[in-house]
Amino acid sequence: MTQMTAPTAAVLIIGDEILSGRTADTNLNTVARFLAALGIDLREARTVGDREEQIVEALNALRHAHDYVFTTGGIGPTHDDITADCVARAFGVGISEHPTALAILEQRYGHELNAARRRMARIPEGGVLIANPVTDAPGFQVENVFVMAGVPRIMTAMLEDVAPRLRTGAVVHARTLRVSGVGEGAVAATLAEAARANRELSFGSYPFGAGSQGEIGTNLVVRGRDAAAVEAAVAALSERLTAEGVAVALQPA
Amino acid sequence: MTQMTAPTAAVLIIGDEILSGRTADTNLNTVARFLAALGIDLREARTVGDREEQIVEALNALRHAHDYVFTTGGIGPTHDDITADCVARAFGVGISEHPTALAILEQRYGHELNAARRRMARIPEGGVLIANPVTDAPGFQVENVFVMAGVPRIMTAMLEDVAPRLRTGAVVHARTLRVSGVGEGAVAATLAEAARANRELSFGSYPFGAGSQGEIGTNLVVRGRDAAAVEAAVAALSERLTAEGVAVALQPA
Repeated sequence: MTQMTAPTAAVLIIGDEILSGRTADTNLNTVARFLAALGIDLREARTVGDREEQIVEALNALRHAHDYVFTTGGIGPTHDDITADCVARAFGVGISEHPTALAILEQRYGHELNAARRRMARIPEGGVLIANPVTDAPGFQVENVFVMAGVPRIMTAMLEDVAPRLRTGAVVHARTLRVSGVGEGAVAATLAEAARANRELSFGSYPFGAGSQGEIGTNLVVRGRDAAAVEAAVAALSERLTAEGVAVALQPA
Repeated sequence: MTQMTAPTAAVLIIGDEILSGRTADTNLNTVARFLAALGIDLREARTVGDREEQIVEALNALRHAHDYVFTTGGIGPTHDDITADCVARAFGVGISEHPTALAILEQRYGHELNAARRRMARIPEGGVLIANPVTDAPGFQVENVFVMAGVPRIMTAMLEDVAPRLRTGAVVHARTLRVSGVGEGAVAATLAEAARANRELSFGSYPFGAGSQGEIGTNLVVRGRDAAAVEAAVAALSERLTAEGVAVALQPA
C-alpha cells in the first residue's frame, strides 16, 4: 500500500523568541504545507530554546524516529546562534569552515566579512549546503537533517533547494464538507460511523462560529491517499447528512 | 535568586490539522505570552497528531519534566477527540462522566444533548474542571496538566480560569535596542561581549529587512528578571554601539 511507504518527518523549531512569546512562529505551517504537497507525513514538531542540551536531545530523538527532520533557527552570526554546533554534537562529528560556504560569504561581504559573519561558514563534517537566495549564508543538510534559517522568507526560499533531495510519497487528498446551522455535536455520530466504515481514511471536524452570534457549523475534512476513496466517502457522508436534514455544502477540491 | 525558582512549563498542541498544514497554530504564542506575564518559563512545545500512543508519550515526558503542561485540542464531541482518554491513560486513572460537567452540558444542550456531546462530560478521575465561557463544555486539570480546547477563542478564555491556579515567578523584563543600517553580523561581536559580561541576562538578535530593498537592521533584545540589570545592560550596549558609529534606538519598554 502506498501509505505504508510514505516518508515521515518532524520539524524542530529553535529559538528563545518563540517560547518567550516575542515572535509567533509561522515556519511550522509553511513546512507542513510543503511536505503535504510532496506526500511526506509530518508526524510531530518540537519547539526548543537556544539551549545546547535541549537542542541536541531533541535532534537525536527526532532524527532516529523519522525519515527527515527539518530545523529552523539559530544559524545566524550572533552568539545565540548555536544550531550548527548542536547538529555536529548530535551526530558526533567535527565542525569546521566549509570552503564553499566561506567563498559564498566572502563574495557577499567582501571586507565586511568579520569573525561573527565568518561563523556562518562553519558546517558539521559531511554537511551538504542548502542554498539561501535571500541573504546567501547557506543552510546545510547532514544525513536526514535539514538545517534552515529562522527568518520565514529565508526558510521558505531554502525549501526550494531541499525539495529535490527528498523521497516523496503519494499526495494526500483532502475534501471538505461544510456543515452549517448546527454544531459538530449534531453530526458527530454520523461522522464516527463514516470513520469506522473507512478506516484507511481520516475524518476530522473543525467547528466554526461556536459561541458567537454568527453562523455556527463545522468543516468535516476527509483525507486519504486514494483520491477515489476520498471522493466516494465524502459523497456518502454528504448524502447521509442531507437525509438527516443537515445543511451541507461540498467545498471545491 | 528569583530566577532559580521560576516555574517551568511546556505546551502540547494536539491535532492532525496542524501537522497537515490545514490550520496554522496560534495557541502556542497565546500561551507563551500568557506565561511570560506570569513569570513562568515556557521551556518547550510539542505538536502531535490525533494518535493515542503519541499523545500519551508526549504527555508523560512533558509532565515529568516541567512544573506545568498546557494542552490544546482534542476535547470536542467527535470521534477524533481523544485527549481526555489519553490524559487518563497517561496518569493511569479511570475516566467517567463528571457530574458538574454533565450538568453544564445538560444546561446548554437540553434535549439536544446526544451521546456525542455527552462524551465531553467524560473527565479523568481527580480532574478539576476549567471553565469555558464561550461554548460551556469545560476543559480540565489533572495534577500539573491543564487540558484546553483547540479553538483559539475558547482556549484563550480558558486561560482566565487557569491563571489563579498557577504559582507565578518574577516577570522577565525585556528591552529592545533597534539597530538600523547594518546587519546583525556588524554588531555580533559587541553583542557577544555584552552577553559574556552579563551572564544572568539573555541577549537575542532578530534581524529585519535582510535581503530586501528596504531598510536592514536587527532588534537586539535584552531579557532578565532583574529590571535594573536589564536597563543597565541595554544602556551600556547602546552607548557602546553608538561609539562604534552604529545607529541605535532604544524602543519603549
